[in-house]
Amino acid sequence: MNFTCTRKKLQEAINSVSKAISNNPIMPVLGNIFLKAKDGQIIFRGYDLEIGIEHIENAEVIEEGEVLVNSKLFSDIVRNLGEEEAKIFTEDNKLVIISGNAIFNIRWLETAAFPKLPDVEKDNKVTLKTEYLKNMIRNTLFSVSTSEQRLILTGALFESEENCFKMITLDSFRMSIRKEYILGNDEVFKFVIPGKTLNELLKLMTNDDEEIRVYYETTQVLFEFGNCKFISKLLQGEYFNYKAIIPKEFITKIEVDVNEFREIIERNMLVSDDGRKAPLVLEINDNILTANTQGEAGNVTETLYIKKDGKDMRIGFNAKYLLDAIKSVNEEKVRISFMGETNACVITPLNSDEFLYLILPVRISS
Amino acid sequence: MNFTCTRKKLQEAINSVSKAISNNPIMPVLGNIFLKAKDGQIIFRGYDLEIGIEHIENAEVIEEGEVLVNSKLFSDIVRNLGEEEAKIFTEDNKLVIISGNAIFNIRWLETAAFPKLPDVEKDNKVTLKTEYLKNMIRNTLFSVSTSEQRLILTGALFESEENCFKMITLDSFRMSIRKEYILGNDEVFKFVIPGKTLNELLKLMTNDDEEIRVYYETTQVLFEFGNCKFISKLLQGEYFNYKAIIPKEFITKIEVDVNEFREIIERNMLVSDDGRKAPLVLEINDNILTANTQGEAGNVTETLYIKKDGKDMRIGFNAKYLLDAIKSVNEEKVRISFMGETNACVITPLNSDEFLYLILPVRISS
Repeated sequence: MNFTCTRKKLQEAINSVSKAISNNPIMPVLGNIFLKAKDGQIIFRGYDLEIGIEHIENAEVIEEGEVLVNSKLFSDIVRNLGEEEAKIFTEDNKLVIISGNAIFNIRWLETAAFPKLPDVEKDNKVTLKTEYLKNMIRNTLFSVSTSEQRLILTGALFESEENCFKMITLDSFRMSIRKEYILGNDEVFKFVIPGKTLNELLKLMTNDDEEIRVYYETTQVLFEFGNCKFISKLLQGEYFNYKAIIPKEFITKIEVDVNEFREIIERNMLVSDDGRKAPLVLEINDNILTANTQGEAGNVTETLYIKKDGKDMRIGFNAKYLLDAIKSVNEEKVRISFMGETNACVITPLNSDEFLYLILPVRISS
Repeated sequence: MNFTCTRKKLQEAINSVSKAISNNPIMPVLGNIFLKAKDGQIIFRGYDLEIGIEHIENAEVIEEGEVLVNSKLFSDIVRNLGEEEAKIFTEDNKLVIISGNAIFNIRWLETAAFPKLPDVEKDNKVTLKTEYLKNMIRNTLFSVSTSEQRLILTGALFESEENCFKMITLDSFRMSIRKEYILGNDEVFKFVIPGKTLNELLKLMTNDDEEIRVYYETTQVLFEFGNCKFISKLLQGEYFNYKAIIPKEFITKIEVDVNEFREIIERNMLVSDDGRKAPLVLEINDNILTANTQGEAGNVTETLYIKKDGKDMRIGFNAKYLLDAIKSVNEEKVRISFMGETNACVITPLNSDEFLYLILPVRISS
């Protein structure tokens, strides 16, 4: 193998594939980057058996070939190369990297031991703008379940509805739904993507205007965008029937300013050890929302002017769950709808159904 | 106690005094900030029995008084206050903090349990520009000893010479000397400041043009600058006779470009686990310096054009020690002088004696 490539391209490729390389790989061979020079291209691969990433860069290939190199060492070296084109070639059992006056010799391994990335059939395809997929992931990922008790809930449900795509996550305390309207889509699909996959995918989708092609089978999915192919397993099983728990009737609805409300929640969390130790109590009286937390070390009370429709009421929440939802809202104002002190509240936009956050209350003393 | 103060002033004061407040204080009372409102000023104090910091801000004092408040909680709250002036007052056993619509109630304690900050006599004073003191600390602190075996070496020697101040640190492997020329100084002094003190002091000296007044006694020192009084214990005992180990005669002297040499060291460290596992070998042949590291995972070789005076030679170093010294150099080029393969090298400026870094070599196979 023998090729020359710029540091910038090498770094981009390594940055991509390293998302699928663990610091403590379950098999030593998976701590390597797979490198293949062929037809004027360098193919980089990383694989942790759950996620596989392939990244391709154009380069001047002098001699074709393929090797495995230690991911950490190779990326450390590339990060420290000069601006010149790097020459990279095998010489006996060494991979030689020459950049400027620096000559590195590192070990390389045969590629035979590296597991093959799964093939994903391209029969079923969904295409959308990267920006839309990013929005859906960002606005729901925080409420993916972290409990291994119901594995299916550690993923996000990605499904189509008429003219829109939806992403849904839920744990035992809250649910997040994010919709993107995709006019003219006639693809019907429904599958559950692991939270870890979405987390890594989010880091790699840097170009908002780019198209992303999503190919799915029953057990796996392939995301294609830019120079990247990103393959992941899908979670198997029936997802929770989330529509059944979306409340329809409310006794109180309020409209709050998102920034003001976020700051109030943050200040309340100061005395409750980030929401873990004492509930945030919301009290609605006419057009005043009072937020209060009685922590061990102190207490905080704050009022906010609101628009209100319905009854006065009083309800307690884990402040962290409210904050997660409010922080992901990209609107000036939101509606919060209540069904009573012991039922979930629902946070929605004023004039659309783009998102819905459902949060269960916590018991408070009266 | 009752006063109003802006968030900005409160934050600056807390930022100062918190440098003397540990997250795990040896006595619970030292986890508090001492607050005193008097004569149109708020006095803030933090103290960990080694370092004591007093910070004063002007404010509107409505009622004089003093309290202790939990440092972490109080600073978390202040950081999250709005832009309005905050009203802060005691009400029974609560300290009330009002900012905008937010009302915090937190516990306060009597100040009687808070240890008094030591008084430092103002008989002996050194005055210098903050910038000079910062330079001296920054360029020497990295080689302060971390071993408790010889406590005196965990501090930096600060001493006067004719028309200059010097700071010296050393551990078992290297020594750093930094000089600042202070014309017209007639103060004669010599004392050893704990490394921890210098580390915290460095963070607080933000205004380079400001004057800093250093008052010293045998056992303690007071730094006065801006709104701050910073008191520290001094280390007791005789400092190492460092002048005795400064070599005078060399067999080889080279001049290297600082940036190029730094990059070469950094690249060599990639294969030696940050310099811990394999020595960086420097080989000088005519006007070429070759840097080579034979690590377990790979090796790197790099060459650099140098000016040379004296014999060709070959010598090994812990790359980290070379890097620490080279990184603190604020010059384009430096001179490195060698006495032979088993003796220390010395890094100095080309045309002054502003700094001197002495580094012991490590044994290498020939």
